[in-house]
Amino acid sequence: MDFKTPEGRKKAYDTLVKEKIDALVVIGGDGTFTGARLLAQEYNVPIIGLPGTIDNDLWGTDSTIGYDTSLNTIMDCVDKLRDTATSHERVFLVEVMGRDAGFLTLSAAIASGAEAAIIPERATVKEQIEEAIGQGRRKSKNSSIVLVQEHAIEGGAQAVAKVLEEAHPEYNTRVTILGHLQRGGSPTAYDRIIASRMGMAAVGALLEEQRSIMIGIKNDEIVYVPLSKAIREKKDVKADKWAAMQVLSI
Amino acid sequence: MDFKTPEGRKKAYDTLVKEKIDALVVIGGDGTFTGARLLAQEYNVPIIGLPGTIDNDLWGTDSTIGYDTSLNTIMDCVDKLRDTATSHERVFLVEVMGRDAGFLTLSAAIASGAEAAIIPERATVKEQIEEAIGQGRRKSKNSSIVLVQEHAIEGGAQAVAKVLEEAHPEYNTRVTILGHLQRGGSPTAYDRIIASRMGMAAVGALLEEQRSIMIGIKNDEIVYVPLSKAIREKKDVKADKWAAMQVLSI
Amino acid sequence: MDFKTPEGRKKAYDTLVKEKIDALVVIGGDGTFTGARLLAQEYNVPIIGLPGTIDNDLWGTDSTIGYDTSLNTIMDCVDKLRDTATSHERVFLVEVMGRDAGFLTLSAAIASGAEAAIIPERATVKEQIEEAIGQGRRKSKNSSIVLVQEHAIEGGAQAVAKVLEEAHPEYNTRVTILGHLQRGGSPTAYDRIIASRMGMAAVGALLEEQRSIMIGIKNDEIVYVPLSKAIREKKDVKADKWAAMQVLSI
Amino acid sequence: MDFKTPEGRKKAYDTLVKEKIDALVVIGGDGTFTGARLLAQEYNVPIIGLPGTIDNDLWGTDSTIGYDTSLNTIMDCVDKLRDTATSHERVFLVEVMGRDAGFLTLSAAIASGAEAAIIPERATVKEQIEEAIGQGRRKSKNSSIVLVQEHAIEGGAQAVAKVLEEAHPEYNTRVTILGHLQRGGSPTAYDRIIASRMGMAAVGALLEEQRSIMIGIKNDEIVYVPLSKAIREKKDVKADKWAAMQVLSI
Repeated sequence: MDFKTPEGRKKAYDTLVKEKIDALVVIGGDGTFTGARLLAQEYNVPIIGLPGTIDNDLWGTDSTIGYDTSLNTIMDCVDKLRDTATSHERVFLVEVMGRDAGFLTLSAAIASGAEAAIIPERATVKEQIEEAIGQGRRKSKNSSIVLVQEHAIEGGAQAVAKVLEEAHPEYNTRVTILGHLQRGGSPTAYDRIIASRMGMAAVGALLEEQRSIMIGIKNDEIVYVPLSKAIREKKDVKADKWAAMQVLSI
Repeated sequence: MDFKTPEGRKKAYDTLVKEKIDALVVIGGDGTFTGARLLAQEYNVPIIGLPGTIDNDLWGTDSTIGYDTSLNTIMDCVDKLRDTATSHERVFLVEVMGRDAGFLTLSAAIASGAEAAIIPERATVKEQIEEAIGQGRRKSKNSSIVLVQEHAIEGGAQAVAKVLEEAHPEYNTRVTILGHLQRGGSPTAYDRIIASRMGMAAVGALLEEQRSIMIGIKNDEIVYVPLSKAIREKKDVKADKWAAMQVLSI
Repeated sequence: MDFKTPEGRKKAYDTLVKEKIDALVVIGGDGTFTGARLLAQEYNVPIIGLPGTIDNDLWGTDSTIGYDTSLNTIMDCVDKLRDTATSHERVFLVEVMGRDAGFLTLSAAIASGAEAAIIPERATVKEQIEEAIGQGRRKSKNSSIVLVQEHAIEGGAQAVAKVLEEAHPEYNTRVTILGHLQRGGSPTAYDRIIASRMGMAAVGALLEEQRSIMIGIKNDEIVYVPLSKAIREKKDVKADKWAAMQVLSI
Repeated sequence: MDFKTPEGRKKAYDTLVKEKIDALVVIGGDGTFTGARLLAQEYNVPIIGLPGTIDNDLWGTDSTIGYDTSLNTIMDCVDKLRDTATSHERVFLVEVMGRDAGFLTLSAAIASGAEAAIIPERATVKEQIEEAIGQGRRKSKNSSIVLVQEHAIEGGAQAVAKVLEEAHPEYNTRVTILGHLQRGGSPTAYDRIIASRMGMAAVGALLEEQRSIMIGIKNDEIVYVPLSKAIREKKDVKADKWAAMQVLSI
């Protein structure tokens, strides 16, 4: 919070000078990069950003550090849930993190064979619920797992449960809120490898006197993206991924 | 539900006869055993019970099948949570299953180094919350993880969050509800070994013409417990386990 | 083996006719695709190949189904090894699968922070061993983990141990052979997602009357590769990955 | 090694004095305890031992710290192996650690449903191999997993492979050597809980002026065992565990 004030950034700059730090490599998302840009502008500090967020919502990079780890954590949780789901008649709602973006929720739904995902990028929640239930019914399943992006609706999975129970009192819903456990754990191979490559690229970029850029990865190659652009632009959920989930739910 | 009616049990018995099944080995807890006893009494079917519940609340056995697996699942989740917990100032509440019993919650708290556990066997929830906070404060931690048994208070972890936020608005609370994922997953070595030994013992007991007993495990030896007793008696949380958690939280 | 003979393929074709199977989707590597092509040519059966090998050595696709899972399995094993490696003075040799290709070994070395990787694509094994040891020494480590591709040298990791012990009797070497456990386990999110997308694409391709192609994935997009080309061409280890491992070993 | 000489122990004692350390709690097995006893006798230092070995071969305690973690690691590895084992005709030999004792190997065999275990406590290796093969054949399986304790035979699993291939050239054997990865990894709930309880008991024992004892756990209660006895006595493999493995292999 301090960092949002000129005084906070002054303090940060003084610390850099005192500790003889020439340049900064920051890891984070929108918030981190916005603060870093201000510091760079006000004090002429060379800054490189690495995309580190489980949401994978940064423009200019295919992947962000942490996304693959989080995706596997969610999938493992849903796998455990399915052991019970196949033995009772129920709708299991699983709340997944993701600020404005549904990438993580949608990919986790495909990977775990969830019946449906409710994400902010799509229609209204009510329509998505009806679609999800219709989906499960068409496949005549006796239980369903639905992933709910936490901000798809005010109140998250528990709000969805309420809507669902009102419209379909015959359904027995159970809510799992994964919460911050999605942000921890030992990183996957993919995350370690891209983090390593990006870290090396950040040092290289500084030595080549680049600044105020984000290191991204596109088609498995390192790319350099102006921080200003990484912050401003928006990434979209691919339509074919949505289709994939609907076809593939186990 | 059907099984609670005489007609339901009649149907079950007819199926046994039709399929030429001589005896039943049932896995479950109180509910399963109560139903099994009725079937045994009404139709003279030899029945052996195996204790299968993640709550570990059955009298006459040190362990129940599933308990160790569930305990490790909860611990792994809290481990992941701690990665974040150490980097922000927050109280993380984690809701753990357990019907009337706090065994699973308390053991998970010890194994994961949680700062506190809120369980039905102890005082009022308010007192436990104050104790938990005092506990964390004495150790001057900047964040805490508190495990909440789902029925320690009406409304579970979210009700605790409300009480906590009212009494201490300075705390930033986050809720994780593990839900049914605690009931699934690949079993641990311990669970597989006791399940195997109990399964062998059940077959042995049937061959020796025993009936209406539960196979238990006491001091690593197989024991035979009348189903009637396994259902009726209560197991208590050991006082030294409670002390251990308070001393040991990381 | 049967399938390599005309009689074996005749039998396979007769089974297809008998079971009313119109087309085949085969999952595998070079061997599987070579057999499938023969069947396609001899009996005019529409065949689509999906790349399924932990070696990731198929031309025309960035990833093969199974590779990411295997990579994470190896990394988890090396992580466990490191707990001991940091507390004793030793060289740990870990034998990794891979037929002719070093992709899996090299990526696993980067992901797990191994000090060195010995792979078939590079120099002689002796030179690689000296380089590995020099590498560890420069960083004045008291123990090293070296990943050895099973066919980098006749006899695998145990042959490397012999060479190493003769040249440097002061080193205490320990060998781990991972073997077929690298081929199993619950698939990662990445593998499930590409397998799902490739499976959908295979069905789509058959409906569009394509045949004798492999479904690949390039820059996160589905591509269609003639089976003949997937079998014939060779994929190379990227030089910058080799450099990354040398810089990054923990 | 230093510690085995009077000079080494002198140095250790001087360090204790210099650092103002009043008492020692040591974690380990036979070797650690033997050294600790000498230090205790020569310099009158209060010493408490905690049983820490994956072999679980210490007399006077049901469990040792690390055993449950190692057991689960081995089981997870064999689970992954089985995915392949069920799809090819092969004998998979898995080498497991264990110095003189077969506890870990036998329990891992039961937990993972291995067809056989070859351990030092039983007959000759040749007889055990014949038994293992006969066992698999009786169940008309098309592949087998056999766990081999590393010291059951000079040369470990690879020596068993040689014996097996000579006697039965029709078998296709594959060797996995788990090695030191069995000693690492994140501890299981059970290991964390007993380690916590034992650690608390060690501090309590020192405050009560006990010395030269090992903290053990018997029937889930803390016990105090003279170090001299913990070192001297031998623990046996239970006959019923051996029977269990033979009956239960998947």
